[in-house]
Amino acid sequence: MTVDVTTKPRELRSYLGGEWVKGAGKAQTLLNAATGAPVATIDSSGADFAAALAYGREVVSPKLRKLSFHERALMLKALGLKLMELKEEFYAESLATGATRADGWIDIEGGAGTLLSYASKARRELPNTRVLIDGDVEPLSRDNSFSAQHILTALEGVAVHINAFNFPVWGMLEKVAPTFIAGMPSIVKPASQTAYLTELVVRRIVESGILPEGAIQLIAGSTGDLLDHVAEQDVVTFTGSAWTGRKLKTSPAIVENSVRFTMEADSLNAAILGPDAGPGTPEFDLFVKEVAREMTAKAGQKCTAIRRVIAPRAFTEALVAALGDRLGKTALGDPANEATRMGPLASLDQRREVRERIRELQREAEIVAGNPDEVRVNSGDVEKGAFLHPVVLYAENPLSKSAIHDVEAFGPVSTVMPYDDLDEAVALAKRGRGSLVASVFTDDKAVAEEVVLGLAPFHGRVLIGNRLSAKSSTGHGSPLPVLVHGGPGRAGGGEEMGGMRGVKHYMQRTAVQGAPRLLSAVTGRWIEGADAETGGAHPFRKSLAELRIGDQLVTATREVTLEDIEHFAEFTGDTFYAHMDEAAARANPFFDGRVAHGYLIVSFAAGLFVDPAPGPVLANYGVDNLRFLTPVYPGDTLGVRLTAKEINPRASADHGEVRWDCQVTNQKGETVAQYDVLTMVAKTWPPEA
Amino acid sequence: MTVDVTTKPRELRSYLGGEWVKGAGKAQTLLNAATGAPVATIDSSGADFAAALAYGREVVSPKLRKLSFHERALMLKALGLKLMELKEEFYAESLATGATRADGWIDIEGGAGTLLSYASKARRELPNTRVLIDGDVEPLSRDNSFSAQHILTALEGVAVHINAFNFPVWGMLEKVAPTFIAGMPSIVKPASQTAYLTELVVRRIVESGILPEGAIQLIAGSTGDLLDHVAEQDVVTFTGSAWTGRKLKTSPAIVENSVRFTMEADSLNAAILGPDAGPGTPEFDLFVKEVAREMTAKAGQKCTAIRRVIAPRAFTEALVAALGDRLGKTALGDPANEATRMGPLASLDQRREVRERIRELQREAEIVAGNPDEVRVNSGDVEKGAFLHPVVLYAENPLSKSAIHDVEAFGPVSTVMPYDDLDEAVALAKRGRGSLVASVFTDDKAVAEEVVLGLAPFHGRVLIGNRLSAKSSTGHGSPLPVLVHGGPGRAGGGEEMGGMRGVKHYMQRTAVQGAPRLLSAVTGRWIEGADAETGGAHPFRKSLAELRIGDQLVTATREVTLEDIEHFAEFTGDTFYAHMDEAAARANPFFDGRVAHGYLIVSFAAGLFVDPAPGPVLANYGVDNLRFLTPVYPGDTLGVRLTAKEINPRASADHGEVRWDCQVTNQKGETVAQYDVLTMVAKTWPPEA
Repeated sequence: MTVDVTTKPRELRSYLGGEWVKGAGKAQTLLNAATGAPVATIDSSGADFAAALAYGREVVSPKLRKLSFHERALMLKALGLKLMELKEEFYAESLATGATRADGWIDIEGGAGTLLSYASKARRELPNTRVLIDGDVEPLSRDNSFSAQHILTALEGVAVHINAFNFPVWGMLEKVAPTFIAGMPSIVKPASQTAYLTELVVRRIVESGILPEGAIQLIAGSTGDLLDHVAEQDVVTFTGSAWTGRKLKTSPAIVENSVRFTMEADSLNAAILGPDAGPGTPEFDLFVKEVAREMTAKAGQKCTAIRRVIAPRAFTEALVAALGDRLGKTALGDPANEATRMGPLASLDQRREVRERIRELQREAEIVAGNPDEVRVNSGDVEKGAFLHPVVLYAENPLSKSAIHDVEAFGPVSTVMPYDDLDEAVALAKRGRGSLVASVFTDDKAVAEEVVLGLAPFHGRVLIGNRLSAKSSTGHGSPLPVLVHGGPGRAGGGEEMGGMRGVKHYMQRTAVQGAPRLLSAVTGRWIEGADAETGGAHPFRKSLAELRIGDQLVTATREVTLEDIEHFAEFTGDTFYAHMDEAAARANPFFDGRVAHGYLIVSFAAGLFVDPAPGPVLANYGVDNLRFLTPVYPGDTLGVRLTAKEINPRASADHGEVRWDCQVTNQKGETVAQYDVLTMVAKTWPPEA
Repeated sequence: MTVDVTTKPRELRSYLGGEWVKGAGKAQTLLNAATGAPVATIDSSGADFAAALAYGREVVSPKLRKLSFHERALMLKALGLKLMELKEEFYAESLATGATRADGWIDIEGGAGTLLSYASKARRELPNTRVLIDGDVEPLSRDNSFSAQHILTALEGVAVHINAFNFPVWGMLEKVAPTFIAGMPSIVKPASQTAYLTELVVRRIVESGILPEGAIQLIAGSTGDLLDHVAEQDVVTFTGSAWTGRKLKTSPAIVENSVRFTMEADSLNAAILGPDAGPGTPEFDLFVKEVAREMTAKAGQKCTAIRRVIAPRAFTEALVAALGDRLGKTALGDPANEATRMGPLASLDQRREVRERIRELQREAEIVAGNPDEVRVNSGDVEKGAFLHPVVLYAENPLSKSAIHDVEAFGPVSTVMPYDDLDEAVALAKRGRGSLVASVFTDDKAVAEEVVLGLAPFHGRVLIGNRLSAKSSTGHGSPLPVLVHGGPGRAGGGEEMGGMRGVKHYMQRTAVQGAPRLLSAVTGRWIEGADAETGGAHPFRKSLAELRIGDQLVTATREVTLEDIEHFAEFTGDTFYAHMDEAAARANPFFDGRVAHGYLIVSFAAGLFVDPAPGPVLANYGVDNLRFLTPVYPGDTLGVRLTAKEINPRASADHGEVRWDCQVTNQKGETVAQYDVLTMVAKTWPPEA
């Protein structure tokens, strides 16, 4: 498993416009983080970035936008499975970055898992269409002649994703997944230091032929003049240092064209130990374990790592001792060695940088565990490997200090800070001026509530650690595809992922206004006031092949008698007084006397609209947004209007969902109940053999 | 009604830190747009802007955040009504800006109406809490020991709103409304030119005492060093020229602190006449009327005005003739004169600017109606008033041109462009490179679908005009509080309003993870896995004063027999084959034989959980998210678990909403149905006298 230092370094290429492009200039050599051996060379000079953007916009984007959300999701699923199949090759390549197997798991399987999560969530939560509907219809006139509906459509540009060195696989895929689901092509630019792993993964993606050609382009090397050519339909995302991020954010084309720019930069993430979580409690032990894990995973080179450890003053001594003890046992070395628990930093430059930051922190805090200048390894090259032992600092009077809240040492380095009360703990965390994540370890509801709500405006994610979730918690440092990732202020102000929220970052929201008839034609959803077709067969006799939006059934009517109400009450056991006792019902602020059960109304409605014989409607699987709007009194007569509202064939089944608008009215024309009936309907009827 | 030119100009003041502050330098004199008479003087020099921000953050923000959404909404409602009451004073002051009564209506009543819309929508759509829940619970473990929930909390900073001269009232209030609902204080900086009207409205707001002190601060004059002091919890919004906007967006403190920045800048909005909408159709007439209205309302000084008129080649001649005819009748003059239909531009500088832009347009287009250098008025000062007649230009081969798509003449100026097919019409509209709004006039569903979906990625709003909505349409140029306002690219990339979407622009989204027990304590909403209290009284016996999140009822069980199913079918009329015919039911892909009706399950469930006697639960007003998850076969036994999930007392009634989690299980413990039951519950029981 050790790297053969005699191997000629691999020459990385960019993948642009459907071709693997060689750099035209002097290549940079990338070194193994643990041994210093050359791994690869990188150079993108000479590449035509304006052409790559144009190719993405003009050739790739129209292809992707033609696919439905479910079609894109199925491709993403296939790709995720393919990458899982190839994972051992990626793990092997990953060693050179300094990543242990556990570190590689976060990056490689975490990356493939993000594709699978997006694939599955998109099919569950999005319709099988090309346009998303956003929010409810907004009626803009009393007579339903003018309404509005917000929609989301894919941007027609390219998403440029500029990534950091620490997660060469996940960093790419967590951005590509929502971009692709939205229907946009990506250009990925990994940090050079570990770009060989990204390049390998992109090679395998391209070879697999699973995604449409050009859905991912790759820049191996610098972005050259790429950002001078981005335009109003493009998106740029950046993960890396605040300094670089600010430079990109203010670059002329991005500003001039209001290009969407998302940034995830520095973050002095805090972990708070609750006042209830002293030594001897499960929370104390979990806290020690979590802080140590966050310091050593990826050798602390994670944007989400715990940099500030905020603990009750009385517990800090025990905490520092426990942390020092645990961290002291961390086996440092070449990750190719199986005994290694923590690998080197990404490069000697990176170690130099972290050591400088530690010196800055030392002006305000003292080192209480670890020695940044000493190296003891079980393997790897002590001279050429970028090894650094975990370092814990302690800062007295932390509210009066600044560097401990401002200086990010991007390695296995954390500062412990004492607090005297919860207000102070929250105030200390806020001194980070916006972070990706914070955590609080407590088993006390009141502590959780106070701390989490105090932290929330300053954080994109807050984790509560305690005994109940000890086994299942994914931990402080793990962004998850279903949760937002990003933080305000110093953390860059960006927001990524968050399930389907992330897809919308690559789409434009548009309010569409007009007569319901035309609005309905645009959105593919029937709305009140749109055309309805009441002729022909009962709509339950129509398969998805025959059914159209607006197909409508107006039923016969039925009287609701007092006997019906009493019978229903007796039969179901629901003898609520409003149905049974005239005087008591009259005393109720909402009723003028005995009323029919809501469930009786919907049951009678079904009796009116259902077509009983076997047919394409296979099942009623649910009801949405049921509201009882007008009481039904004995003697009232009910009728139903049922209209096909949304038709959503499944990409991988012989049926699909149909949503019916169901309106129950009384003899005065008042709506007594309004809801959506959800059914499964066959694509053809009779079913094809 | 004419302005007395001998009146001494009013000295405007800023309202900062709870005091009206006089400028310390040389004031600028603001002139009546129609007469050139001095109206007011303005100067903010010497003001301590850092102190104003600190006051907002430290004194005002905590006060606002203590109020619930409904409390804030009720204040906004009172304020909206108060401003409507005072409107005549504002109309009078508005004349000096050049606004006619109709223009003033958009600004003044449109502004107050925006407050009322936000007040009403916030009470309907938001809970009466301080923290918003965003999206569904994300279960992160199989055993419900670890879950996540996104929440939204108010940012703890100040929102700085920098507004344009054209809507001194609406421009302020459309931003203040969502800001205030979110729980953030505002600092408003109107454009100097028309700041006297904004200042007057703020005076009346402050005098009314309706909003908490400091909720609105005002800068009458320049922002000085204000933007050097904005920090990570602040928000800056800007409406005005792209040049200024870009300068602000890249200012050091905004970039450094990732301050949220929303911009609404230039926009070359297009209106497209459909190929079906030739002369003689209602759509043609509506189009002419709409273009003329958009050109003359506010003398064309609206970000949403129609600048580009895209029409089928065959109709352009008739269109130009009709437009010229209609516009030629526009009575220009001092808006203080009741015969006036269009007032002057805001200032002579503004007119000079527009005339220059017209000259640029003339390089690519010819003037076909109106003369920019001639002035015929019914009143006002021909020399000192900034009068300009409407000007229509016509551009042949518009796809080959650039100025007509790029140069915004911010006055009564539009360019007509012919197209040959719909693709070309859409391509022309996109040449605006991102606009606030576009419209298409058509009565053809296919045209509406193709054009709207083509335009959507480039626009924040698209309006379809046709005969059906002729009377009720709010028109191309009207942003509405319930719809998003803003556009991509050239339009600035911002998004404002959009109902409750706009409130979230002033809040931070945070993913909170943890054991459901603690998560529930943070969000105030019961979730699966959180603590439940099953002891004590039936939860339906508890008023809002007694009921707690997690109060739970586990009911007795009940068997569902074949007789029940048959009886229910006969009683309700729902004789669907899956309930009645064993062989046919078996042939259904989802069932193994005859099944119970979904409505029977929920009816029996109610029979199990309802407590019949009069009590605090007043009514079941609906059901949400009902899903039938496992078929119920004859002989199955059902039981219900009902748990208080959300408790939402109304701010202005003696009851509130309680949402119950309702889970129906069978004898194997499988969930057969899952839904939320919605009830109205009294605040106390028995009700207080």
